[in-house]
Amino acid sequence: MTNWVGDSVVIEGGHKRSGGRDGRRALRGAPMLAFPALVREIPTYELLPDEAIELIHDESMKILEEVGCEFRDDQAPAMWKAAGANVQGTLVKIDRGLLMELVAKVPSEFTLHARNPERSVKIGGKNTVFVPMYGAPYVRDLDGNRRYGTLDDLQNFHKLAQMAPQLHSASSIICEPMEIPVPKRHLHIIQSALTHSDKPFMGIVTSKERAEDVIKMAGIVFGDSFVKDNPVVASITNCNSPLVWDQTMLDAMRVYASHNQPVILAPFALCGASTSASPIGAVAQVNAEALAGVAYTQLIRAGSPQIYGQFMVTVDMKTGAPMGGTPEAAQMMFVMGQLARKYKLPWRTSGFHVGSKVNDAQAGYESNMLMHAAILSGANYIWHVAGWLEAGLACGYSKFMTDCEQLSGWYKYAGGLKFDDFKEAMSAVREIGPAGHFLGTSHTLENFEKAFFMPTIMDFNPFEQWQAGGSKTHDERGSDKARLALSNYEKPKMDESITDALAEFVAKRERELPNTIS
Amino acid sequence: MTNWVGDSVVIEGGHKRSGGRDGRRALRGAPMLAFPALVREIPTYELLPDEAIELIHDESMKILEEVGCEFRDDQAPAMWKAAGANVQGTLVKIDRGLLMELVAKVPSEFTLHARNPERSVKIGGKNTVFVPMYGAPYVRDLDGNRRYGTLDDLQNFHKLAQMAPQLHSASSIICEPMEIPVPKRHLHIIQSALTHSDKPFMGIVTSKERAEDVIKMAGIVFGDSFVKDNPVVASITNCNSPLVWDQTMLDAMRVYASHNQPVILAPFALCGASTSASPIGAVAQVNAEALAGVAYTQLIRAGSPQIYGQFMVTVDMKTGAPMGGTPEAAQMMFVMGQLARKYKLPWRTSGFHVGSKVNDAQAGYESNMLMHAAILSGANYIWHVAGWLEAGLACGYSKFMTDCEQLSGWYKYAGGLKFDDFKEAMSAVREIGPAGHFLGTSHTLENFEKAFFMPTIMDFNPFEQWQAGGSKTHDERGSDKARLALSNYEKPKMDESITDALAEFVAKRERELPNTIS
Repeated sequence: MTNWVGDSVVIEGGHKRSGGRDGRRALRGAPMLAFPALVREIPTYELLPDEAIELIHDESMKILEEVGCEFRDDQAPAMWKAAGANVQGTLVKIDRGLLMELVAKVPSEFTLHARNPERSVKIGGKNTVFVPMYGAPYVRDLDGNRRYGTLDDLQNFHKLAQMAPQLHSASSIICEPMEIPVPKRHLHIIQSALTHSDKPFMGIVTSKERAEDVIKMAGIVFGDSFVKDNPVVASITNCNSPLVWDQTMLDAMRVYASHNQPVILAPFALCGASTSASPIGAVAQVNAEALAGVAYTQLIRAGSPQIYGQFMVTVDMKTGAPMGGTPEAAQMMFVMGQLARKYKLPWRTSGFHVGSKVNDAQAGYESNMLMHAAILSGANYIWHVAGWLEAGLACGYSKFMTDCEQLSGWYKYAGGLKFDDFKEAMSAVREIGPAGHFLGTSHTLENFEKAFFMPTIMDFNPFEQWQAGGSKTHDERGSDKARLALSNYEKPKMDESITDALAEFVAKRERELPNTIS
Repeated sequence: MTNWVGDSVVIEGGHKRSGGRDGRRALRGAPMLAFPALVREIPTYELLPDEAIELIHDESMKILEEVGCEFRDDQAPAMWKAAGANVQGTLVKIDRGLLMELVAKVPSEFTLHARNPERSVKIGGKNTVFVPMYGAPYVRDLDGNRRYGTLDDLQNFHKLAQMAPQLHSASSIICEPMEIPVPKRHLHIIQSALTHSDKPFMGIVTSKERAEDVIKMAGIVFGDSFVKDNPVVASITNCNSPLVWDQTMLDAMRVYASHNQPVILAPFALCGASTSASPIGAVAQVNAEALAGVAYTQLIRAGSPQIYGQFMVTVDMKTGAPMGGTPEAAQMMFVMGQLARKYKLPWRTSGFHVGSKVNDAQAGYESNMLMHAAILSGANYIWHVAGWLEAGLACGYSKFMTDCEQLSGWYKYAGGLKFDDFKEAMSAVREIGPAGHFLGTSHTLENFEKAFFMPTIMDFNPFEQWQAGGSKTHDERGSDKARLALSNYEKPKMDESITDALAEFVAKRERELPNTIS
């Protein structure tokens, strides 16, 4: 098979054994827009023993029982009171019995539907999905310049997300279309995600009305009755650490959960600032915050699918700036994974999120420090896996492409080692014996492409050949690939009536909404 | 404590709890040339179940029993015959009973002595040592230019290795001093390693005489009688895959093992070319090759300390060039670690070895793909962890520095999570409650530096601040740090009589040896 830029891509399970090179050549005819679902076939890494996980769990429970969590609006505290929690104003103290009873209602696995059923994915269990970044006001453009994002950029990133076979979602606000007034921006973001891609997408959470617009737009595409009960959009709600769920987030939870749409309940924790300066202490707090959010969604709609999660980075002591790929971020990820499995919850973490300003060596070190942990910790929804630079302030075209290629490697990694041709490989050793080489054996010819990761943005050519090609850095090669990919984009099919109805809805809401926030 | 470039470095176990900031400030007075030994306090990652490891072991045994391994010289086959192996010419077929009996004689842990006893390290068990790269004909210099290495460069790298507290060895041929005639080169390499650093070092294996010169030079520094029995120098012998140990390597094994000096028995495997195109098949073959080498050292000197090992990279199908940080390299590392634990052997792998020509994003992705696996696979001797570029053809100053900083992170990672201040961290949560921040709590002030990795070559400053500093890439910042470090170097103490004796030995051998290989 070829992918979007004509590279040969062989992913186990991607096609049946095809009878050698001819078969493979035939399969290369059509570009591949999505790898088969990633089902992890390797063990998770259990950093801490069970007793330590229980100790952390116990401290999380004590936080919610004794310190409490704020739910800062009118509705949530009343709902908690009715459920039996100890409520004083907006401060809610939740007994572990009640909390765990609510958490247990969340399905451990569910299907997130795409408008193209072939792109639907399972969330939870051994399934892992890769989702590109979200929320960048800036872009690093194809010439390496940093500037504000535009709708044109956002559309480009939705196109790339659609074409990258490694990605399972178009995300939504990959970058902010800064030229569009804030009150109207969400309409164009969702319209672009839904029309440029037929993969799952993400919602908007910045106000109740905007969340409702998302549900309506999803209804236009999937049908209102489908969206009432079937997960089609995943949205992010962040707890304000320490221990505050604010009205905006609670509104978003109510809109989405009432439609049975999954919300990611993830504290955005700057460890050392919004948590204590202890990785274990930070995990105990974030776990309490995330579980309080998860439990609240079950007061809205019991049994609704939800995603437990975390975004935990340490902060630079000198400036307070968030860091990216540090050892503690990886360690905390492992522990959150262990907790998620204890609670049998689908869970989200982040992959290639870095502090580096550019797609340089720092970005690379940071990215694979984190992704290795994300994969081995058994995360189900690995977010921010394409484009992320500058602690999320910028999305880079080159970073987007280089990240996607790395994901092909992680696909192979998570697929585990195959024993199916072990006997044949051992026969090849007998055939060759001491000395000699294996390049001409039938086993090699049959298995080479499948056996090893063969990237093309990464450059393994001899020095002289690399030099003859212009001595390009990985960053430059990533930009080249982005240009090539964008020139190959084809819009996925959508009924004209749906395209028109979406456009009408956007136009109508544009007329209704103000240009500035009053 | 400060390290070589004045950064604050806090490694658990590096100093006793010091009573707060004053204590820490006092400790920053003296530069730190070596972190405390790295004892891994995290579990290993077991990629495969035990049954699969047994299956691979069984296939390795069959290779040695049925196909055999060549020992291409006069002495080794005779020694094998005397030990009871089935020998035909240079082809040696080794029964698994005999093989495992010999392998079992190798100590599972031993001390590698440095000339400064404070720098001696343990090899095996839960201990991990980090050793800089070896063998580069080229350097990427401080201005980013690629050129042949010189003695001046080599001395610089030995200085940096001495100063980097993360490194446990000066290696030896970090880069080749290309201006020195080959027959005399080893003398200057070893003299530089022994005089510019007081950490353990590595030997030369390119001929029997050169290996003997290394033993003599070690004798001058450590005393001949000490070197007769105590490990002071680790050397690399590579099997020529498939299944050939050549005379040069066998000579080196005999010189070193007869002095009780450890040899790394590591096939240099280009998977797909010198092994079958199957990661599992490659592991089974490399395991057979390494074990055959390990067993042979025990015929030379039973009970001598040895290091089982591997260097396994996949090859680029288009050019045959070796790759670096690929998923299969990581997977194979995990399996080799499982095999090493089965055999109770200290084992070597490689850390930051990349195919990238420059210290760019590719180099970063590759580096941490591999190091993550090296740490989690429980490797004891992690080589090529500083400087490596271009599949080993070049050593970069900037890469050397950025790798060393990353190693500080890996130190923290491998040290595991600390529960000693968990109660205090939880008290801080009670003190702050919902909302607010933790920056001013006593727990934070006391623990911040210790809690989190705080690198300085990596840049987490806000964009504007980074831009004001010249928008430097990680590669450029690495070169800056190398310049700063070299300007701060101080030679470690060595008795003048030893310095003179080494110089005399070098001068004498220079007179004896030809300038060209006859």
